[in-house]
Amino acid sequence: MGKRVFNFYAGPATLPLKALKEAKKDLLDFRGTGMSVCEISHRSKDFQAVMDEATALVRELYAVPEGFHILWLGGGASTQFFHIPWNLGVEGRPFAYIHTGSWAKAAIKEAKFFGEVKVLASSEDANFSYVPRRFEPDPNAAYLHITSNETIGGIEWLSFPDPGDVPLVVDASSDFLSHPVDWSKIALLYAGAQKNLGPAGVTVVIVREDLVARARAKSLPTMVSYATHVDKGSMHNTPPCFPIYLSMLALRDLKEKGGLPSMERLNKRKAGLLYRLIDSSNGFYRGVARKDSRSRMNVTFRLPTEELEGKCVAEAKARGLIGLKGHRSVGGMRASIYNAMTPKGVKTLAQFLREFQLANA
Amino acid sequence: MGKRVFNFYAGPATLPLKALKEAKKDLLDFRGTGMSVCEISHRSKDFQAVMDEATALVRELYAVPEGFHILWLGGGASTQFFHIPWNLGVEGRPFAYIHTGSWAKAAIKEAKFFGEVKVLASSEDANFSYVPRRFEPDPNAAYLHITSNETIGGIEWLSFPDPGDVPLVVDASSDFLSHPVDWSKIALLYAGAQKNLGPAGVTVVIVREDLVARARAKSLPTMVSYATHVDKGSMHNTPPCFPIYLSMLALRDLKEKGGLPSMERLNKRKAGLLYRLIDSSNGFYRGVARKDSRSRMNVTFRLPTEELEGKCVAEAKARGLIGLKGHRSVGGMRASIYNAMTPKGVKTLAQFLREFQLANA
Repeated sequence: MGKRVFNFYAGPATLPLKALKEAKKDLLDFRGTGMSVCEISHRSKDFQAVMDEATALVRELYAVPEGFHILWLGGGASTQFFHIPWNLGVEGRPFAYIHTGSWAKAAIKEAKFFGEVKVLASSEDANFSYVPRRFEPDPNAAYLHITSNETIGGIEWLSFPDPGDVPLVVDASSDFLSHPVDWSKIALLYAGAQKNLGPAGVTVVIVREDLVARARAKSLPTMVSYATHVDKGSMHNTPPCFPIYLSMLALRDLKEKGGLPSMERLNKRKAGLLYRLIDSSNGFYRGVARKDSRSRMNVTFRLPTEELEGKCVAEAKARGLIGLKGHRSVGGMRASIYNAMTPKGVKTLAQFLREFQLANA
Repeated sequence: MGKRVFNFYAGPATLPLKALKEAKKDLLDFRGTGMSVCEISHRSKDFQAVMDEATALVRELYAVPEGFHILWLGGGASTQFFHIPWNLGVEGRPFAYIHTGSWAKAAIKEAKFFGEVKVLASSEDANFSYVPRRFEPDPNAAYLHITSNETIGGIEWLSFPDPGDVPLVVDASSDFLSHPVDWSKIALLYAGAQKNLGPAGVTVVIVREDLVARARAKSLPTMVSYATHVDKGSMHNTPPCFPIYLSMLALRDLKEKGGLPSMERLNKRKAGLLYRLIDSSNGFYRGVARKDSRSRMNVTFRLPTEELEGKCVAEAKARGLIGLKGHRSVGGMRASIYNAMTPKGVKTLAQFLREFQLANA
């Protein structure tokens, strides 16, 4: 086995080593069944145990209250972009969105297919470098949608807005389970697994019963309706078994590491280390996000020239620090430091960036 | 590692041992990248190489002609049940379906959501024990849909009907890549991976350019439109990376074993062994499917009593022959013997069934 690198990709992203080792062990013989975890029937008690444990761990770690259902679905968060308005739309009531960047934009585009969309606030005026916290709520909206973390801009809602009586829908794909959330504000929260939870191929939807009731009252294609997946325990059809299984192993690891309070402290520390380095670099490194909106998950920054950025990415790679190039739509650099990125990885990156500055400033 | 069992589950199902071993090797360090195959970015050249190889292998092994696109999508074949009529529907033209059992029924249900459905033939009159090959085509239909293999009844279209000028759409989820097909008859063929290709979590859609053009002319949600996935090489959003990767390994194995001509011979032999045993059991074992419609993938049969069926399933399990219980909706027994089930597995099952008959007849 080669040396394990530090993987700063924005997703698919680094996973807990312990979870990967456990998965490796089960890949030919799952729990003594004589079958791979990829071969067992989703209707077997062995796989049902995986589904149950994964669901229970999400509920426990996120402190999801009674009255919310936890679903494991295929198709990615991008599929939820159109399933959400279709399930939750109410005649005569617009969909309200806050526009914070590429992911919010993608969600807004799909909602327009199912009705009127009102964008209550946008940070487009400053190239999506901040979270627009001040906006006029629309009490008539079917729901209010926010993107809790934008991976491309590197901005994050560290606390959620008060939606009043309107159901708050949160795309938490890139900061899922990275800090405790206030469920009294949330009606639906969803996340593709491949950033902060597990491998690509499964999406978690946590949805309050009253919103499932909206879906139940409609005529929807079977696979679109949240009611189907609630009633069938996410097994109307064959679920993405291996992605769910590896997510379960990552959830176990998260629990062993002390759960969300511990993970939040760690994530603050990891992000703090990089932002302090940026702020104390005398302008050699420039943070992209406004300070009050800085993401703890995706640290975006620029160097004095694009040439230096390219050099920095290449030299980092040679040192085993992978995936630091910013998203192709915005350029620059980005360090994605999700739950599974170790403090050691972040310290190694910080050390490298200090040395790079000394050699190139 | 425990003894490897013979897995006769209907899906998720047995996979080639060689593919699993290779995946195990890559689970911590993919091709010397220092990352798991579950951790690498889908935008990396390493993953693009996986996607390209998997696609090229499907094209080569299935002899898919120019003018057809090969897509890798999430959500399962059940999601295609509604995406197909939505993409391919044409104003004023009904959807034509042949009704052959549970899977055809599920597909028909979703199509009704998008327009008029005409069921041109059905084998419901004989409990879906045969493929209704004689029917009056509807030349005005937007397409004609068949389910090439029904896992529950154990019946299969061993050759496809001539659809005339109407595009033929084939749900080949359970006999994908098990025998060569005549692409001159086919307009779209789709399959969930978890029966005959790879692990659960990815669906292959092979679609002819003129049907993509129908999708392109419509206003559809981004993730629904085949045009999106054609234009983005199945990477509009993060694809189910690990399921695609393991499917690629299984495709390599299929190629090494001689591809489809060889696999078809093997599948005929495997199924023939079991059907001959059934036919020569003096009625102790009774085949469920009509002889002219017998599936090579799912061999369904009954014993004289349900009690004996239960005993047979239990004794088989004790001998390492797993998953022989029939689908809960119909009872009886079922041996699913997809591509990856070895002749040795089928011979071991046949030997057991002979002994069981001797002891219990």
